[in-house]
Amino acid sequence: MHFTIETYTIELKSKGNCDIIDITSKVNEVIRENSFNEGSALLFVPGSTAGITTIEYEPGLLKDYPNFFEKIIPKNQNDHHDDTWHDGNGHSHVRASLQGASLTVPFKNKSLILGTWQQIIFVDFDNRHRDREIIVQITGKRD
Amino acid sequence: MHFTIETYTIELKSKGNCDIIDITSKVNEVIRENSFNEGSALLFVPGSTAGITTIEYEPGLLKDYPNFFEKIIPKNQNDHHDDTWHDGNGHSHVRASLQGASLTVPFKNKSLILGTWQQIIFVDFDNRHRDREIIVQITGKRD
Amino acid sequence: MHFTIETYTIELKSKGNCDIIDITSKVNEVIRENSFNEGSALLFVPGSTAGITTIEYEPGLLKDYPNFFEKIIPKNQNDHHDDTWHDGNGHSHVRASLQGASLTVPFKNKSLILGTWQQIIFVDFDNRHRDREIIVQITGKRD
Repeated sequence: MHFTIETYTIELKSKGNCDIIDITSKVNEVIRENSFNEGSALLFVPGSTAGITTIEYEPGLLKDYPNFFEKIIPKNQNDHHDDTWHDGNGHSHVRASLQGASLTVPFKNKSLILGTWQQIIFVDFDNRHRDREIIVQITGKRD
Repeated sequence: MHFTIETYTIELKSKGNCDIIDITSKVNEVIRENSFNEGSALLFVPGSTAGITTIEYEPGLLKDYPNFFEKIIPKNQNDHHDDTWHDGNGHSHVRASLQGASLTVPFKNKSLILGTWQQIIFVDFDNRHRDREIIVQITGKRD
Repeated sequence: MHFTIETYTIELKSKGNCDIIDITSKVNEVIRENSFNEGSALLFVPGSTAGITTIEYEPGLLKDYPNFFEKIIPKNQNDHHDDTWHDGNGHSHVRASLQGASLTVPFKNKSLILGTWQQIIFVDFDNRHRDREIIVQITGKRD
């Protein structure tokens, strides 16, 4: 048994505007390809207009979750951020700070410990297409 | 001193409907019974209709916090999730994704580092009674 | 290479009322002064009226983010918490439980991995000036 901490990255293309991307299988791949057996995966998005959480990844919730953000933090309200920077994404920043840039998920027997209907998602709150890099830092035991 | 990462579980029965359960003493028990001295406890709920956070666990807030969720993500609104699955818990999923399925709390001298009035809570957003299993993964030093 | 977990603290003075304090440079100092090279920084606020997240720390968002909390969890609504304790900070507790008391940020090459415009912030939701202590627990490799 060997205990360590290693930092990897996942690359994504997102459409922005509350695009929700299931990254579960990519995180499991990082765990398996690097021979980790038990530990935790710290997922972190470098950037201030996106977040990470879990959801049941099914078509209804892929509408309901963006609708919720549009209701409580609408686009095109008169944000002070937009008044200064004129990039029209003040709402993206507020949504991202609320959601949080990070999630840590435990794994055992080479698999993430998740509910049957629970997936890890990256949510891109920015108002345009983005190329994104997500950090996957594994702390744990190798075989 | 011995450094390691170990995965444990806590079992709970919840009433659902924003039932808030204080799990602080159970997490401290896991730390002490397994002779950890300093490190972190990763708490994770496998499932997409519950969350973990901290609160001052007193009767007023046990009403105020559920009332807040009922205000911003009400039950029985016409969710796309419910249109498809007819289980009436679309709001449970949205609340859970917002709250987050995970929390990491540091500990030292065999005790969680918390504020005097701060407890770790499991919040069950589902719309029915549930048997729940919470993951407690400890990364740290033994005596 | 030496693998370990160590617990440090940062001390802050806050003005309360959604005061937002950038703690990024203080966390990087903890990493560098203690010769860590790669790992994660667990940031945790002991207390039930404050939170930790990331944001683009610029004057517009320092108004927009507090405005958002005032909109969804207003001060001086008739909280059950306040009815009991008469400290007028029921809204502070609800905001803090929603935001979350904790954030974990990865680092490599002695630096936090953050977006160019992304800073780590402490948000004090309490309704008065506070002296605060934030836990910075580092899990990682020394040189």
